[in-house]
Amino acid sequence: MFTKIHPPSRLVPLVSLLLICDFAASYITADGTVVIPGASSYNGLNLVPQMGWDNWNAFGCDVNETLLLQTAERMVQYGLRDLGYQYIVLDDCWSVGRNESGYLVENPKTFPHGMKYVADTIHSLGLKFGMYSSAGVFTCGRYPGSLGNEQKDADYFAAVGADYLKYDNCFNQGQSGTAQISFSRYNVMSQALNKTGRPIVYSLCNWGDDNPYDWAYTISNSGRMSGDVYDSFNRPDSRCPCTEAIGCAWPGFHCSVMNILNKMASIQSRTMSGYFNDMDMLEVGNGGQTDNEYVVHFSMWAMNASPLLIGTNVLTLSPANLAIYSNPAVIALNQDPSASAAVRKWRYFVDPDETGEGEIALWTRSLNNTDQVIALLNAANTSMMMNATMNDIFLDPRTAGAYQAPPQLSKTWDVYDLWANRMSVAEAGSIINGTAMNVTVNTNSTLTRYNATATSYAQGLLNNDTALLGSKVGSIGPGGTWSAMIPRHSVGLYRLRQRESKMVRRKDEL
Amino acid sequence: MFTKIHPPSRLVPLVSLLLICDFAASYITADGTVVIPGASSYNGLNLVPQMGWDNWNAFGCDVNETLLLQTAERMVQYGLRDLGYQYIVLDDCWSVGRNESGYLVENPKTFPHGMKYVADTIHSLGLKFGMYSSAGVFTCGRYPGSLGNEQKDADYFAAVGADYLKYDNCFNQGQSGTAQISFSRYNVMSQALNKTGRPIVYSLCNWGDDNPYDWAYTISNSGRMSGDVYDSFNRPDSRCPCTEAIGCAWPGFHCSVMNILNKMASIQSRTMSGYFNDMDMLEVGNGGQTDNEYVVHFSMWAMNASPLLIGTNVLTLSPANLAIYSNPAVIALNQDPSASAAVRKWRYFVDPDETGEGEIALWTRSLNNTDQVIALLNAANTSMMMNATMNDIFLDPRTAGAYQAPPQLSKTWDVYDLWANRMSVAEAGSIINGTAMNVTVNTNSTLTRYNATATSYAQGLLNNDTALLGSKVGSIGPGGTWSAMIPRHSVGLYRLRQRESKMVRRKDEL
Amino acid sequence: MFTKIHPPSRLVPLVSLLLICDFAASYITADGTVVIPGASSYNGLNLVPQMGWDNWNAFGCDVNETLLLQTAERMVQYGLRDLGYQYIVLDDCWSVGRNESGYLVENPKTFPHGMKYVADTIHSLGLKFGMYSSAGVFTCGRYPGSLGNEQKDADYFAAVGADYLKYDNCFNQGQSGTAQISFSRYNVMSQALNKTGRPIVYSLCNWGDDNPYDWAYTISNSGRMSGDVYDSFNRPDSRCPCTEAIGCAWPGFHCSVMNILNKMASIQSRTMSGYFNDMDMLEVGNGGQTDNEYVVHFSMWAMNASPLLIGTNVLTLSPANLAIYSNPAVIALNQDPSASAAVRKWRYFVDPDETGEGEIALWTRSLNNTDQVIALLNAANTSMMMNATMNDIFLDPRTAGAYQAPPQLSKTWDVYDLWANRMSVAEAGSIINGTAMNVTVNTNSTLTRYNATATSYAQGLLNNDTALLGSKVGSIGPGGTWSAMIPRHSVGLYRLRQRESKMVRRKDEL
Amino acid sequence: MFTKIHPPSRLVPLVSLLLICDFAASYITADGTVVIPGASSYNGLNLVPQMGWDNWNAFGCDVNETLLLQTAERMVQYGLRDLGYQYIVLDDCWSVGRNESGYLVENPKTFPHGMKYVADTIHSLGLKFGMYSSAGVFTCGRYPGSLGNEQKDADYFAAVGADYLKYDNCFNQGQSGTAQISFSRYNVMSQALNKTGRPIVYSLCNWGDDNPYDWAYTISNSGRMSGDVYDSFNRPDSRCPCTEAIGCAWPGFHCSVMNILNKMASIQSRTMSGYFNDMDMLEVGNGGQTDNEYVVHFSMWAMNASPLLIGTNVLTLSPANLAIYSNPAVIALNQDPSASAAVRKWRYFVDPDETGEGEIALWTRSLNNTDQVIALLNAANTSMMMNATMNDIFLDPRTAGAYQAPPQLSKTWDVYDLWANRMSVAEAGSIINGTAMNVTVNTNSTLTRYNATATSYAQGLLNNDTALLGSKVGSIGPGGTWSAMIPRHSVGLYRLRQRESKMVRRKDEL
Repeated sequence: MFTKIHPPSRLVPLVSLLLICDFAASYITADGTVVIPGASSYNGLNLVPQMGWDNWNAFGCDVNETLLLQTAERMVQYGLRDLGYQYIVLDDCWSVGRNESGYLVENPKTFPHGMKYVADTIHSLGLKFGMYSSAGVFTCGRYPGSLGNEQKDADYFAAVGADYLKYDNCFNQGQSGTAQISFSRYNVMSQALNKTGRPIVYSLCNWGDDNPYDWAYTISNSGRMSGDVYDSFNRPDSRCPCTEAIGCAWPGFHCSVMNILNKMASIQSRTMSGYFNDMDMLEVGNGGQTDNEYVVHFSMWAMNASPLLIGTNVLTLSPANLAIYSNPAVIALNQDPSASAAVRKWRYFVDPDETGEGEIALWTRSLNNTDQVIALLNAANTSMMMNATMNDIFLDPRTAGAYQAPPQLSKTWDVYDLWANRMSVAEAGSIINGTAMNVTVNTNSTLTRYNATATSYAQGLLNNDTALLGSKVGSIGPGGTWSAMIPRHSVGLYRLRQRESKMVRRKDEL
Repeated sequence: MFTKIHPPSRLVPLVSLLLICDFAASYITADGTVVIPGASSYNGLNLVPQMGWDNWNAFGCDVNETLLLQTAERMVQYGLRDLGYQYIVLDDCWSVGRNESGYLVENPKTFPHGMKYVADTIHSLGLKFGMYSSAGVFTCGRYPGSLGNEQKDADYFAAVGADYLKYDNCFNQGQSGTAQISFSRYNVMSQALNKTGRPIVYSLCNWGDDNPYDWAYTISNSGRMSGDVYDSFNRPDSRCPCTEAIGCAWPGFHCSVMNILNKMASIQSRTMSGYFNDMDMLEVGNGGQTDNEYVVHFSMWAMNASPLLIGTNVLTLSPANLAIYSNPAVIALNQDPSASAAVRKWRYFVDPDETGEGEIALWTRSLNNTDQVIALLNAANTSMMMNATMNDIFLDPRTAGAYQAPPQLSKTWDVYDLWANRMSVAEAGSIINGTAMNVTVNTNSTLTRYNATATSYAQGLLNNDTALLGSKVGSIGPGGTWSAMIPRHSVGLYRLRQRESKMVRRKDEL
Repeated sequence: MFTKIHPPSRLVPLVSLLLICDFAASYITADGTVVIPGASSYNGLNLVPQMGWDNWNAFGCDVNETLLLQTAERMVQYGLRDLGYQYIVLDDCWSVGRNESGYLVENPKTFPHGMKYVADTIHSLGLKFGMYSSAGVFTCGRYPGSLGNEQKDADYFAAVGADYLKYDNCFNQGQSGTAQISFSRYNVMSQALNKTGRPIVYSLCNWGDDNPYDWAYTISNSGRMSGDVYDSFNRPDSRCPCTEAIGCAWPGFHCSVMNILNKMASIQSRTMSGYFNDMDMLEVGNGGQTDNEYVVHFSMWAMNASPLLIGTNVLTLSPANLAIYSNPAVIALNQDPSASAAVRKWRYFVDPDETGEGEIALWTRSLNNTDQVIALLNAANTSMMMNATMNDIFLDPRTAGAYQAPPQLSKTWDVYDLWANRMSVAEAGSIINGTAMNVTVNTNSTLTRYNATATSYAQGLLNNDTALLGSKVGSIGPGGTWSAMIPRHSVGLYRLRQRESKMVRRKDEL
Repeated sequence: MFTKIHPPSRLVPLVSLLLICDFAASYITADGTVVIPGASSYNGLNLVPQMGWDNWNAFGCDVNETLLLQTAERMVQYGLRDLGYQYIVLDDCWSVGRNESGYLVENPKTFPHGMKYVADTIHSLGLKFGMYSSAGVFTCGRYPGSLGNEQKDADYFAAVGADYLKYDNCFNQGQSGTAQISFSRYNVMSQALNKTGRPIVYSLCNWGDDNPYDWAYTISNSGRMSGDVYDSFNRPDSRCPCTEAIGCAWPGFHCSVMNILNKMASIQSRTMSGYFNDMDMLEVGNGGQTDNEYVVHFSMWAMNASPLLIGTNVLTLSPANLAIYSNPAVIALNQDPSASAAVRKWRYFVDPDETGEGEIALWTRSLNNTDQVIALLNAANTSMMMNATMNDIFLDPRTAGAYQAPPQLSKTWDVYDLWANRMSVAEAGSIINGTAMNVTVNTNSTLTRYNATATSYAQGLLNNDTALLGSKVGSIGPGGTWSAMIPRHSVGLYRLRQRESKMVRRKDEL
């Protein structure tokens, strides 16, 4: 069995104290809560999913100082930083090898002021800096990898001021095949990062090989669970041969949004505070999908507590796409302290489109404050009237243990459409062209904006901040059904709140 | 090949003498039976499946001294102890960590008198006490796990007086992937328990990972063979993706009764005296299934010699559900000295219900005294007239070796319906409200009750105790067919006895 | 790639010289043939498949001295010894444990004169003696196993005079999961047997786990490739869940004849001189199949160069079944020096019977003397007119390399029905009741009998002994098709001989 | 993620300096290109796929000095050497064992002048010499293998002057089951070869076991990704049971051209400069397929950057088959510096033939100079009008990152049919019968011939050599579709060139 417990939010990060084999002493707080250091995050970091930007999807190896710093500035100007997108991640192809002491050396042509300058500048903007390597002898781009040089490389990352490491899986010298082999390989870097004493979010990118969701929690902060995403809503591609995460012999790449989403259905219980199943970077803005499809992509990544890494060129971001990235009601869902993934309650294969794919599904998620979110996902080829019954929505409490009618079934719930207050193209355009008011100040600029730098999403939810709730569109009560007409390749994303807002302790899922 | 042999019931438990690499000397008894110590139970314990109560399904982490002790008392009052439900198992979430010497410490808020007090009180009620840990760095609820602390934790369990250890699989640091890896991890605790000198039933909970039914016999007393059950008869759930135990890449949880049952079909030969395939705790009473479905659940767990752990709130148990748990004719099937699982003789997919599932099947089991049990299982959506021919029932002797017409085919068998004498709601209600006669005395209170504390089921069967036989409803002879109308989601469970009751030695299965 | 080469029949067995890590020197003979010691049999033994009797299928654990010795005598009397059935194999359940020195001790009740007496008596009858253990801590019947005691047990087997070891897989302490793990476990006994200096055929019984056909050749003489057979022609059973040998997660038992046969199709190239894929013991005589079905069973085991171990009670053998076991034309196929398995050229699923199974298939095999055998197998529910074209029969030479029209296609071939001269029931009855002439003398008693003790099958084929050819029933030439009406659940088994009998060197298969 | 980067063609082979654990220092060139030694080829060799001849498919074990040397001479005479077929590979069955010092000894009957003589003679013809062994205790033909003798055997190969080692997988003592196990086994020979100091192309032949495409790059130059090919276009064979490379439990042999081709679709990203996925030797000329089918075979091997090893008898090569082997426009595709495999953009199952197989597919490949190649493959049973849209052809740039309309979609492309200028049978016949002009001189003899000894294909493409372009047959522009009627079992193979020939840097694939 596998339980979810509430993240002990009072846990102080203890980064430099925690080594995996040497847990600090447990204790019990005044109110009776047991605190087991390491049990809600192996290094005290990333209690909710990381957010930020990574250059890979949009730029591949075409990276340099200017791109990073311009993007960082733009992230601030567009309000993305204050929405929570904190990490500016420099992906592969930044190195020219090692120096005589064996330390990595950044490319002096593309990073003429050195990597520390990049980190410092990013820090000065109130952002954090992420870097990249591979648990192999080369990176995927065939630059020097860290396998066999873990401590030196961890020391380098700490020395330049990195706050985050994306750690890939290429050229791993055959060190895979059982969980034990992969765990051992990735654990070396985990220990090396801890040894530096610097808090560094450790993001595994081993594509789900050897089921990291089954072993990576105690050594990392997130782990990719699929082959690489590509900018397609649902097109199957022979290079991404698996349709399930589990038992996948070849993660591959060119995995569509729907492919990756459905891989989450079986492993969703292994998303937890401090460790998130990473569904890969966001393609929103890269042009391969419709606006509706990008809304599905962003919504379902948020629903499943995936890290949210912007994967497009921020410098050329369109208003419509900025509006997707900037929806605080959906981000609040992603950043909910429950730190849990969604459940696919049902799925039907219907009405395929030109790719041969067609399905509808209901996904739900229980949030920390007893709110419930439902996603009516229409990935079929035509509009559908879709329904979610109270029984569907609250299946888990109905089947969770010693019988008492689940209290949820007897409540009336207000239904909020989380996309109702999406920023308009006009407003987004004004942000982009600089005619909008300064969104970087520590106040909410409009109904649909939110400043998480000032007030965490968790606190905002406690405050009932309306920016996090979308707009009320109806209600559902005992025996009821929520119905909505959902267009082709779209999603209806709704937050349900009990009319009586009194917090009750949710029965833990089994 | 894999044979079943009769458990040498004369084998004295040799707990403190047996270590897996140091078998005590074999010997041959006066009547020629060979006794190989360890060959019918690795530690001499659990020659028939364990029975008891475990708090997890109903209470999760909401555990404390009061719950355990009240439940224990109620188990005695309701006659459940004397029906054989011996173990009161405290599941996860009882610890606050380790003390300075590295020993586990119980939560002083929830266990204010200490764990030894709990054990002692339970023992004073004539019951036994079970505890829980995980073969990982955390338990599934993220409390301290035993990986790396096995001997200290075993010593703790022995010191407080535990008689039973449920040992989970969460946070196992990637120590899985081959039978060899998992065996090694679980064997450490096996040896640690033996070293304590205290008889402790060792119950593996690794969800069938790496096929424990293929290697756990020599180091444990039972082993889970599937992901966690949930309170549903047959609803598929994406979180329990496998439909077979073998080759399952992801055991998961939210597995339905029918899902787990059918996983037994291929591995049933690996149930044996001293080691049982654990189909997980009973959901009877938790409200997610109909009375008929709970009868199927209890019957098929009994048929397959699964451990029978009550998984509901005994304090609020309804009369109907008490009546299911209290059927000695079905428990006697579970506790039969044959210690073997049932065989699924045939299965047809028919008439699906709203979950998309529908099937009918015949399961049979050969008992120690030559009785044969058949289960006509209707998991289709409507009532079915179901049939079992003599050829179906006795397929195994018909195909078992040097040909001679199997004697079973030429016999006439009386057919006993094992649910015919189910306790009435009125009677069960009188037990619950305390108006029934005291059922804890060492005599059978009514036809349908049985006191296994006084007389073992094995002895009761030798005595032809009518409480263990249900009610005769017909007979079947050479060339015959047993037919019965079975309602939707129900089972007909019948014990066949040869008219001539003379014991004959059953031909061992191959 | 994987080639078949002719067994260098001039290779002298070098049992006591060969250890797997210390190959004796290679050499080249006068005629240019390269001789690599160990390359046609790891220990010089079993260049063609072993034949004999094993008690398990018919008697299980009910074994004793009398059964073995009576059976051995009867094997001689019935002419079975001289047909090649040499090994009398005592299976599981013969031991009472170990003595103080750690050596196995036979059960004094069932083997009152000791095991050496049994071996000596069997040897005196011109037969060889086989024994049994398991590469686990127990045997499958839960008697002491050899894991950890390999050398002592090998010394015991050699000391009592065993010529053969069947080595099972039960209770293996989780030592499985990769080829490497299983190889290492089985190799310990291989080296132990070699170290005894006694020639002992080493027969692996690990049910195909971890693909022994891929690694067992260099350490053993045969290896089981499936779960246990049961006495059914084609009935699927949930206890034998795999339909392919490869990738099988659970070999199980209760595998039907057709199930095991079809598992050979993918792995047939791994049958070779000195190492045979063991399809398990013969069920012929055990009563679960029709005479036609038993003929299929015996024929297809012979076609695939499986060991032929009689698995029934010889003491009560019926004339019809004796006639099946006694067909020298089919045994000569099995014992052909080519030491290769058959190829399933095509298979169609048609006309299922009451088990839900129905298929027809063409199997072919190339023999050492350029003869070609074809089996038209009708496992459908009705009689079928079946056809094999010259192109089907000679597909392999047609696709084998540098193009030249395969000479086989331009030849005319005489077709011999290998079952045409099956011994009559009357004749077989006279053997059984002792009124037949003494068949143990070193001469052929009738057209359908053969004395392999006097003249090997290889020599008999060189002699064109008519007993090995069945009866000519037609011919097939260029562009032709061989057609025959094959009854339900039957096989047509034909040996094709070139009209011009001049030997030509066959192009090796790739 | 997994990126393709351009091979740094300026990388000097550093064979004797590079050991896998001791990479030479990286550096950055004047134009800013980063050079990481080892990152484009582990030993500096084989930056484009190896070409040559191997005796196995046509001759198996019937090898000798004469065959090799005659073939080598004929390769020169027919112009095959100058087309790039450099390696004359002696496959299995050349040894008689080891001498007293443990070194391999060639068979003195078949190689009377010793192996060095063979190598020297081949070198004198301007060709290179390849040899064979197995990472097992025997070769597949049961000659001595190199497992445990790696350094001695590598020294032997270097001493006789071998330039290439094909290293097989037979009799590997169970050393398989995880990537880690197989990597370790093959790495021993890799290091041994490097230690000799002689540049030796290292060609793995482990049939795709344990996914070599995931780990072999850093230790070898090519790796087989499937069981052995046989001379059939698409006939399924039970001995080649897998239809996918990934997750294949049994590579087997008798794999058809279409079977192997489709196995490439999921793993194509793991073809890279210095390491090629080897689809096995070419069957062109062996007689089992039609001329159209052989054209498909050759075209698709070339498309996927497979090594091109002639696998037929060159001494009896027909004009039609010589014409296939001699098409420089297709070879240039194979030898393109992009060193990448093709992508299967779509595949439909249609119109099966007598084997039960039928499909059509579009494959595309991006070349180094921005040319794009498309293959319209008709493996259905009748002629088909096939279409490739601009969107299909340029799917990858359309989905590759930060959106900007891919420039390719707005270009007009000239379409060249790469088979249009196939050498006529008359011309090929004149080459074979010696009446053609001497084709071994360092000049192009005709439009359809090419001398790669004088001018590399890479340079020829830069020169716009018309021999490498086939013939222009049309064009395709924005929004267009390329359509062609493709006969049964044929392929249309087209190179698309931008009208504006200015080189642009291609966006790397993700």
